[in-house]
Amino acid sequence: MSVIEARASDITELGQQLRVDAVRASARAGSGHPTSSMSAADLMAGLLTGHLHYDFEHPHLPGNDRLVFSKGHASPLLYAMLHAAGAIDEEHLLTYRKLGSDLEGHPTPRLPWVDVATGSLGQGLPIGVGMALGARLSGSPARVWVLCGDGEIAEGSMWEAFAAAADFGLGNLCAIVDVNRLGQTGPTRYEWDTAAYASQIGGFGWHTVEIDGHDPVAIDRAYAEAARQDVPTAILAKTRKGKGVAAAEDKEGLHGKPLAESEKAVVELGGVRGARVRVNPPRSSEPRRSRPSLPMAHPSFPVGGSAATRDGFGVALEALGDANPDVVVVDGEVADSTRTDAFRKAFPNRFFECYIAEQQMIGAAVGLQSQGWIPYASTFAAFLTRAHDFLRMAAIGGADLRVVGSHAGVSIGADGPSQMGLEDLAMFRALWRSVVLYPCDANQAAHLTATMADLPGISYLRTTRAETPVIYRGDELFPVGGSRTLVGSAHDRAVIVAAGITVSESLGAAERLADEGIPVRVIDAYSIKPLDAAAIRQAAAETGRVLTVEDHWPVGGLGDAVLDAVAGQVPDVRFRKLAVRGMPGSAGPAEQLASAGIDSAAIVRAVQRLVV
Amino acid sequence: MSVIEARASDITELGQQLRVDAVRASARAGSGHPTSSMSAADLMAGLLTGHLHYDFEHPHLPGNDRLVFSKGHASPLLYAMLHAAGAIDEEHLLTYRKLGSDLEGHPTPRLPWVDVATGSLGQGLPIGVGMALGARLSGSPARVWVLCGDGEIAEGSMWEAFAAAADFGLGNLCAIVDVNRLGQTGPTRYEWDTAAYASQIGGFGWHTVEIDGHDPVAIDRAYAEAARQDVPTAILAKTRKGKGVAAAEDKEGLHGKPLAESEKAVVELGGVRGARVRVNPPRSSEPRRSRPSLPMAHPSFPVGGSAATRDGFGVALEALGDANPDVVVVDGEVADSTRTDAFRKAFPNRFFECYIAEQQMIGAAVGLQSQGWIPYASTFAAFLTRAHDFLRMAAIGGADLRVVGSHAGVSIGADGPSQMGLEDLAMFRALWRSVVLYPCDANQAAHLTATMADLPGISYLRTTRAETPVIYRGDELFPVGGSRTLVGSAHDRAVIVAAGITVSESLGAAERLADEGIPVRVIDAYSIKPLDAAAIRQAAAETGRVLTVEDHWPVGGLGDAVLDAVAGQVPDVRFRKLAVRGMPGSAGPAEQLASAGIDSAAIVRAVQRLVV
Repeated sequence: MSVIEARASDITELGQQLRVDAVRASARAGSGHPTSSMSAADLMAGLLTGHLHYDFEHPHLPGNDRLVFSKGHASPLLYAMLHAAGAIDEEHLLTYRKLGSDLEGHPTPRLPWVDVATGSLGQGLPIGVGMALGARLSGSPARVWVLCGDGEIAEGSMWEAFAAAADFGLGNLCAIVDVNRLGQTGPTRYEWDTAAYASQIGGFGWHTVEIDGHDPVAIDRAYAEAARQDVPTAILAKTRKGKGVAAAEDKEGLHGKPLAESEKAVVELGGVRGARVRVNPPRSSEPRRSRPSLPMAHPSFPVGGSAATRDGFGVALEALGDANPDVVVVDGEVADSTRTDAFRKAFPNRFFECYIAEQQMIGAAVGLQSQGWIPYASTFAAFLTRAHDFLRMAAIGGADLRVVGSHAGVSIGADGPSQMGLEDLAMFRALWRSVVLYPCDANQAAHLTATMADLPGISYLRTTRAETPVIYRGDELFPVGGSRTLVGSAHDRAVIVAAGITVSESLGAAERLADEGIPVRVIDAYSIKPLDAAAIRQAAAETGRVLTVEDHWPVGGLGDAVLDAVAGQVPDVRFRKLAVRGMPGSAGPAEQLASAGIDSAAIVRAVQRLVV
Repeated sequence: MSVIEARASDITELGQQLRVDAVRASARAGSGHPTSSMSAADLMAGLLTGHLHYDFEHPHLPGNDRLVFSKGHASPLLYAMLHAAGAIDEEHLLTYRKLGSDLEGHPTPRLPWVDVATGSLGQGLPIGVGMALGARLSGSPARVWVLCGDGEIAEGSMWEAFAAAADFGLGNLCAIVDVNRLGQTGPTRYEWDTAAYASQIGGFGWHTVEIDGHDPVAIDRAYAEAARQDVPTAILAKTRKGKGVAAAEDKEGLHGKPLAESEKAVVELGGVRGARVRVNPPRSSEPRRSRPSLPMAHPSFPVGGSAATRDGFGVALEALGDANPDVVVVDGEVADSTRTDAFRKAFPNRFFECYIAEQQMIGAAVGLQSQGWIPYASTFAAFLTRAHDFLRMAAIGGADLRVVGSHAGVSIGADGPSQMGLEDLAMFRALWRSVVLYPCDANQAAHLTATMADLPGISYLRTTRAETPVIYRGDELFPVGGSRTLVGSAHDRAVIVAAGITVSESLGAAERLADEGIPVRVIDAYSIKPLDAAAIRQAAAETGRVLTVEDHWPVGGLGDAVLDAVAGQVPDVRFRKLAVRGMPGSAGPAEQLASAGIDSAAIVRAVQRLVV
């Protein structure tokens, strides 16, 4: 047997082992995706045995290659690979999908060998782009391998990634597309036409290789070819879903189902094997360098002046970039509006232009943070809705992301509702374990920007286009979960809870109300999640009247956060929520606030009615 | 002057007029996008004068061509076209971006000549796909023209549309890409490389034409060529941003700004013109046929049995399709899971497979409804987050959409959190004027499915994977804004407000609590928005204790809706919200409900604590 023949036999043998283990795990679970695992088994066998450079005992080494299952439903194949690599044992493998097991239906970083959560299709490749950027920035020789399904190629986010990866020249990225012809409900759009995929992906500047995904020699060659490119490579592998078991092979209607006769299938696949694979070591075993961050030169805007919170963010971001070499920024072609352009000019190698592709932008941030970087992602608050599913999955994966949405609310003025973030607070508050911050002045924005660098999970900063009065000194502190009582006395007849642009409107209203003999308290609830529930409850108890006011739809924002804190906790409180209820059109910023009923005059009227 | 020369001169002259009007409108507004209008002015002049078939006095004629400004920020150009067509007068034109004007910063259907809202980039083309499908289904000879920016080609949703339009064979669709080289912050990824775009878009199966977008003869020819194709056509027009004014032409830093010296610019463009264009009449002047819907054969599941609400939806959808020939369905390659497959089999020509491309799916629905169809769009609830921005824009545009999300909540079981819709209620409740419905049994689901057909705006139906007990008869009515009190007495010590899967858990809990001598009321709040606030307030007032329980994150769902209805309205109510607070893993459905603390046992415990 020649060396090539021996190698081919090894791949084929391991492919069968991976199939057997995927079939067994799914059978034991009573659910799962064996057929989608079987199509890609030879591809993964070839990768694991000859081309992946990885130390399974030290999964977080920067020099390790990265493997992302973009087709996350093929998790039994991934777990079979971990079994073959000796990372998990037989007993562990068979806990797949059981209560408490870390071998979930779709992979999550509860497993140390999994960097990011997948399972919503079309996300692994955009995240892989971020990983490849992160590896290159670290000077790591690691390669990023992404196993993709053919069905998920229909997701636009994949094309954002194909464009971005070529643009960034990511020769360290390889997409392995398992073209098994069958989706969930039937054939995919292009079935086995790998030439169609090659023409499309090649048109985006990728190197493409079309192979028979069950031919071990071709698989081996394709990976070697990918490693020689200085552009990203897509391996388009024609495969058969359910490969190796006649009753399942290339059959419709078997997606996401354990095989009917699994024991017979295991026999057909040659029985249970227990081969242990020796995986190539990482190309570098250097540990992660610790890059100490310096004290940050905190920007300061003069009290009494006015400045936009987006400027506070932008200036702080640049200072943070100077102090902390791990901070990186991704933006969606609006850096001049979001104010990340100062960072871009100062640190061009740590700024990644994702163009108008918000899913790729968040995907890149998820990939970068998985490689130890501290990403800030920024675009208009409204357009972050484009990346909602990526944010949802990032929360599932426990990613540490800092997201900044500019141009929040009606106060942007004449551009109209398409550009107004009016649901961003609802979206970010609903994310698991998120932090939601909404500064009212530039110094507060700067402080919160710096604070976010150290926060785990997803934190969101909402900024405002318009200038607002600077009311805090540059050296004041704003802890997450805190609030500021800006006006108050023992005789207050109501408390106004505001944040962001409505803080100055509330202060104006409080002055006018005081002139009318109605003293009110004003709380700046800059930390919308977690909310300073104690302070707000106390104010509610003391005044008996709570008015919330926000530049956001009435659902899911500040008002609802306050309700959640106060309801049932403080007896006999009257409550009123001011928010944007009608659909805005175009108008100037002040006109918009007045039309929406969230300006000083509206607040005065609301308090007058509330204290009757 | 030859005919061709005369025609060319007409286009060039009108192009200058459109530029002048765009410049003047933006100057008067003090904001807006004249430079992005000027690049496309010749393209639109050529379309308006020779190729658009449209009756401006009867904009809703099915035979009218459709023009979508996917680059919605070029609205001054659109308004200048309306001015040239005599649809709006000079005075009206100059209200652009003013308070109360229907000439908004980005186009909305407040204008009768605008079918859908644009302004979030990358949406016009996917919507255009839906329009072209709708026109073809109606037998209308209308063509759909979509003006796209070059920057927005980076959006993945554009590639979903390129793939879908080719797949559907939409020869009646033409994308006019204004390749003006400059985005907001600087050059686009491919600048003037129209060949790069042509290769990419051509690779997806479109006919492509590369032209100089300021050459009137080439423009004319390109439109004529597009009209001859039986596949969709992309015209890739190399243009100059700010064309015609030296100080602005092809200059960076002028995106979204009125020209500095607008009066001088108008002079440079040849001064104010007032030409009135004669536009080609529609190819058909037939009015919309009224297709009367028959009484629907309402499905009925036997009370006391069990069935999944997704099945109630699926069966009702098929019956509705039979009764109402305007009902169409779009799905994201999960029809077997969502249960739209019965409709698909029964009415294959009214079912559109969008594959795994949720943005295109919602875009298609928006386009179809603009052509008078009644679309239902369905995928897993979790994956609807992918289309959040499309839903946001659909709300701005006043689109009538029915959206159905299956596999809501932890009760799906072992597939894990990536497949669980746990933020869909928050997302849909926050949409402007949305209706959110969440049935607990299959008969209720069927009824609500039929009800949605007549609802304006965006309505959302949340369905469940698992079977639940059938508790309602098939002939019962469930009005939007209503609720059902399932258990109750004058002695109730608390009210449990539930919806969907938690209704049966609550009923089980109520039985056990009754056995313990704690009578409780159970309300099925199937209409989460609008909520039956009156009934819930009354129950809260009568019992003094409110427990909400939902298979959703604690933010933005049923509990918050109830809080909003009760807080400050009913004195002295204690409140507790049960929801999913920890990140689920894989487990069986019952295990998931128990782990999340939203099953019968958890409800019993919570009520016991609440009534102490």
